Amino acid sequence: MDQGPVTAALLVIGDEILSGRTKDKNIGHIAEYLTDIGIDLREVRVVPDVEAEIVAAVNALRSRHTYLFTTGGIGPTHDDITADCVAKAFGVPIDVDPRAVAMMRERYRPEDLNEARLRMARVPQGADLVENPISKAPGFRIENVIVMAGVPAIMQAMLDAVAPTLRSGARMIVDTIDAGGLPEGLYAAGLGEVAKGHAGVSIGSYPSFDANGFRNQIVVRGRDAGTVTAAAAAVRDLLARLQADRAPA
Amino acid sequence: MDQGPVTAALLVIGDEILSGRTKDKNIGHIAEYLTDIGIDLREVRVVPDVEAEIVAAVNALRSRHTYLFTTGGIGPTHDDITADCVAKAFGVPIDVDPRAVAMMRERYRPEDLNEARLRMARVPQGADLVENPISKAPGFRIENVIVMAGVPAIMQAMLDAVAPTLRSGARMIVDTIDAGGLPEGLYAAGLGEVAKGHAGVSIGSYPSFDANGFRNQIVVRGRDAGTVTAAAAAVRDLLARLQADRAPA
Repeated sequence: MDQGPVTAALLVIGDEILSGRTKDKNIGHIAEYLTDIGIDLREVRVVPDVEAEIVAAVNALRSRHTYLFTTGGIGPTHDDITADCVAKAFGVPIDVDPRAVAMMRERYRPEDLNEARLRMARVPQGADLVENPISKAPGFRIENVIVMAGVPAIMQAMLDAVAPTLRSGARMIVDTIDAGGLPEGLYAAGLGEVAKGHAGVSIGSYPSFDANGFRNQIVVRGRDAGTVTAAAAAVRDLLARLQADRAPA
Repeated sequence: MDQGPVTAALLVIGDEILSGRTKDKNIGHIAEYLTDIGIDLREVRVVPDVEAEIVAAVNALRSRHTYLFTTGGIGPTHDDITADCVAKAFGVPIDVDPRAVAMMRERYRPEDLNEARLRMARVPQGADLVENPISKAPGFRIENVIVMAGVPAIMQAMLDAVAPTLRSGARMIVDTIDAGGLPEGLYAAGLGEVAKGHAGVSIGSYPSFDANGFRNQIVVRGRDAGTVTAAAAAVRDLLARLQADRAPA
C-alpha cells in the first residue's frame, strides 16, 4: 500500500544561530540523512529562544508534515526552553521523568544531579525518550515531534537512535550530470523543455562559482528508476548537442 | 528619535538545500553581517522551489519584519522562479527591465542575450536593482524585500551593495565569557539568577563538544553598554565563586 511521501520539517531553535555567533551544521546533516532514508525534508525554520515563536512554529510544522525534528534548547540553563515549549504546544504537562533521570545517573553521581541538571530530565507527558550516548541527557519524541540537542555530535547520535523507528518512503533516486563548462544560459531553454516532457522527476540546475569561474551541475531526482533514467538521458543528449554546436568546425 | 529595533527575516529558496545536496553557507554569513550593522535577524526559513510555498513565506515574513532577504532561484533555468513568486506576492506585473538588460550587456554580447538569459533581467514592477559585480545579472529590492542570488560569492557582493541603503539600529554589544571548564550544570542556577536580575540583556550559554569534551561559553548581549558591562561582571563573579568552590582546599 502506498501511503504517499513521508515528509519532514526541521525547526532550529536558538538566538546564537540568528546572531551568527554559531554557524549551524545541523541543517545540512539532517537534510542529507533524511533524503538518504527516503524522508523528504520540505521546510526548515530557525527561530529565537522565545516561547511564543517556538510554540507557534512547532504547531505550524507538526500539523503539516509526517515528522517535525527540532534541534537546540534542551540543556540545563535558563535559555533552554524547548521542552517546555513543546509541552505547551501539545497542551500537556511536563515534569522530571524517572526514565530520563535513570539515564543521567550513568553519568552523574546522585549529589551532582542538581536542580539545573534535572531540568534536562524534564519531558512532556506521553513522550518517548531518545538516547544520548554522549552526554546522557536524552532527547524525546512526542507524537510526530522529535526533539534533539543542538550540539552536532549529540544531535547526530540522537538522529541515529531515532531513525530506525521512523516510517520512511521510497528512496529518492538522484542522477547528477556535470554540464562540462556549458553556461546555464545556453542550456536553460532546452532543459526547461526536458523538464516539461518528463513528469515525475524534478530537474535542477546548480551553478557554483570559484576562481575558475562558474561550474554547473544538473540534478535529476525522482522515485521511479525508469523515469529518472529517461529524463537524465534526455539531459545528456541535450548537453551533447549543445557541446557539438559549440565545437569549432 | 528611537524607531525601535530594526528586524529582518531570511528566506532561503531551493530544493538543493532541503535535499542536502548543497550545504547552505548564506545563513551564517547573513546572520553575522546583519548583526554587525545593527539589524536583528529574527527568523530564517528554507523552502523548496514551489510557487505556493515561496509566495506564502514572502508574504508572511515581509509583513512581520523591517526587511526580508531572500537567497536563491534567480538564475536562467526553469527552476528559478523567485522573481515571479515575489511579483505574485506583491500582486504586481513582472517583465524584462531595460536597466537590468543594460547591466547584463556588460557581460554578454547582444547575440548571447537569449531568452533564458533575459529571464534574469525580469524584475517586478517598482523594484530597484541590486548590482552584481560578479556575473552582472542583478538582484532587486521591492519595498522591504531584497532578492539576492544563492551562489555565496554573488550573494555576498549583493549584500555589500544593498547594505548602505538599509536603515540600521544600535549595534548589539556582545561580551563572550569562557566558562573555563565549568560544566553548565554547575553554573545554570546562578546564571538564571543573573539573567533575572539584569533586564535589557540576553544571556546565553553555549556548549560545544569535541575530543576534549565539553567547552562552554556564556554570551551577554544588549544594546546598552552599561547594562551589558554590569551583567557580564555578574557572570564573571559567579564563575569565579564557583571555580573557588571547586578548587582543592
